Amino acid sequence: MPERLGPPREAPIFRRLALVGLGLIGSSIARAARRQNLATEIVAADSNAEVRARAEEIGLADRVYADVADAARGADCVILCVPVGACGPVAKAMRSVLEPGAIVSDVGSVKGAVMAAVEPHLPEGVQFVPAHPVAGTEDSGPDAGFSTLFAGRWAILTPAYGVEADAVERMRAFWEGMGSAVEIMSAPHHDLVLAITSHVPHLIAYNIVGTAADLEEVTRSEVIKFSAGGFRDFTRIAASDPTMWRDVFLNNKEAVLEMLQRFNEDLSALARAIRWDDGETLHALFTRTRAIRRGIVSEGQDAPAPDFGRPRE
Amino acid sequence: MPERLGPPREAPIFRRLALVGLGLIGSSIARAARRQNLATEIVAADSNAEVRARAEEIGLADRVYADVADAARGADCVILCVPVGACGPVAKAMRSVLEPGAIVSDVGSVKGAVMAAVEPHLPEGVQFVPAHPVAGTEDSGPDAGFSTLFAGRWAILTPAYGVEADAVERMRAFWEGMGSAVEIMSAPHHDLVLAITSHVPHLIAYNIVGTAADLEEVTRSEVIKFSAGGFRDFTRIAASDPTMWRDVFLNNKEAVLEMLQRFNEDLSALARAIRWDDGETLHALFTRTRAIRRGIVSEGQDAPAPDFGRPRE
Repeated sequence: MPERLGPPREAPIFRRLALVGLGLIGSSIARAARRQNLATEIVAADSNAEVRARAEEIGLADRVYADVADAARGADCVILCVPVGACGPVAKAMRSVLEPGAIVSDVGSVKGAVMAAVEPHLPEGVQFVPAHPVAGTEDSGPDAGFSTLFAGRWAILTPAYGVEADAVERMRAFWEGMGSAVEIMSAPHHDLVLAITSHVPHLIAYNIVGTAADLEEVTRSEVIKFSAGGFRDFTRIAASDPTMWRDVFLNNKEAVLEMLQRFNEDLSALARAIRWDDGETLHALFTRTRAIRRGIVSEGQDAPAPDFGRPRE
Repeated sequence: MPERLGPPREAPIFRRLALVGLGLIGSSIARAARRQNLATEIVAADSNAEVRARAEEIGLADRVYADVADAARGADCVILCVPVGACGPVAKAMRSVLEPGAIVSDVGSVKGAVMAAVEPHLPEGVQFVPAHPVAGTEDSGPDAGFSTLFAGRWAILTPAYGVEADAVERMRAFWEGMGSAVEIMSAPHHDLVLAITSHVPHLIAYNIVGTAADLEEVTRSEVIKFSAGGFRDFTRIAASDPTMWRDVFLNNKEAVLEMLQRFNEDLSALARAIRWDDGETLHALFTRTRAIRRGIVSEGQDAPAPDFGRPRE
């Protein structure tokens, strides 16, 4: 998948795009949508005064509001770029200003819980097209965003039955305009796929960094010094936004616990192989896992440079 | 710590350096030692004919042998760059040619088991200075090495009581010459520290990649497609050399199982927090782990660029 953005659109998709939340994702959408001419006007809302001030300073949007309803008023597309747990309350807050035909979308890493929280608040005729761009970095806030964050990455849409096809196609065009490839799937399947490809890996990374920090026999300074042996890669993931991730786990509970259970069973088998000197079992697994890595690199989902291309000579 | 190599030494440390094994680490030492003028002559041995041919082709060493004893004969420093499980047999194979005063070293990720396996084979007067450079990439083989692999990284020495101070200081100078910072510690402490900073992270990465590959509800193609959400970072680690890592786990069994036990206890507590909607526990851990990441970046053990500085615009 190409990692660069194509030329900007000749005609914008939306008249007025409203972004609620200007963190890593919201501010990246603002940058990409502007650069690619995806909306005539971009307005935004953020509850944090510092974020609003910074957004004004760097010109992220045409207007930045404190109140969600002010941003959503008159918008033909509103995208919620807030933690999953905030989507319901935000939908409720803008309910009175949404016009029939307007599209509401989000960027949450969990789709089932977001749909259940948002749908009841949307007036008749408003089209809800939930989305999840599978892209991000460990940084947070309006300065962390960049216009190519979504280029060469997947964006998953999970519209419910009965949503107007035109609304889905406009959202598809919007994400494709930012360089993403779009896939449509059901919310439950999405939540299962992401549990293993994203949520459980994050939980495990957070967990081992916590375990290491609590050791008595190994000092924290030693953990930091000798982290180049593998641990440091986990710390990058474990530096992701705490509120966003708390909400992900609380809102995708069943799939995460199910996948965690399987992870644990497999880990017990590995521990047993170590205890009983079963080198063959270990070697067979360690060989098998290389194939998955090759697939990820050949599909363009990661850079082929070893060590993530960390600086060399 | 500086990530660049300083100027080459005016006088070499060793007259003849013998490297046994020309994989990622051995071939990186060959390149760094030559570039930094750390040895007058560099000879090598590798049991794999393809590796020997390739090493000759790219001029990694002055002479490349199939037989360990041929390389070790007349060397004043022999470094074993083979998987941990092969160190004992290799020491045995070169026993008859080692001269009193010669230094034997290794690069294994486990130190207790290597010392136990190697020491009995070393003739009187040979100085054993075990070493572990905490550096590497997921690539293997003679082409994977590069001369700055050790620059800005730690090298840990674990000499036993009674080893000559001069031998330890020469090995220190050798690693410092390749840009490393040197730390001396006991083998048991090393094995505990590395269990948490390297061995358990690798085991977990291998494990989750295996779990994902075995799912029935999620296809392998979906795992690959949507891996940018976190999973792909684990696959990099899980692409490391299978034989090397099998040997690490079998030879650092106690420390790995002990650390794994703690990891599991912590993970159970997290799973319980998810099940019982305990967002505070999750948020508190996710906030705490950020501090460790900051420490690793500020100590120069990782690049500060988000997402490992993967390519952007």
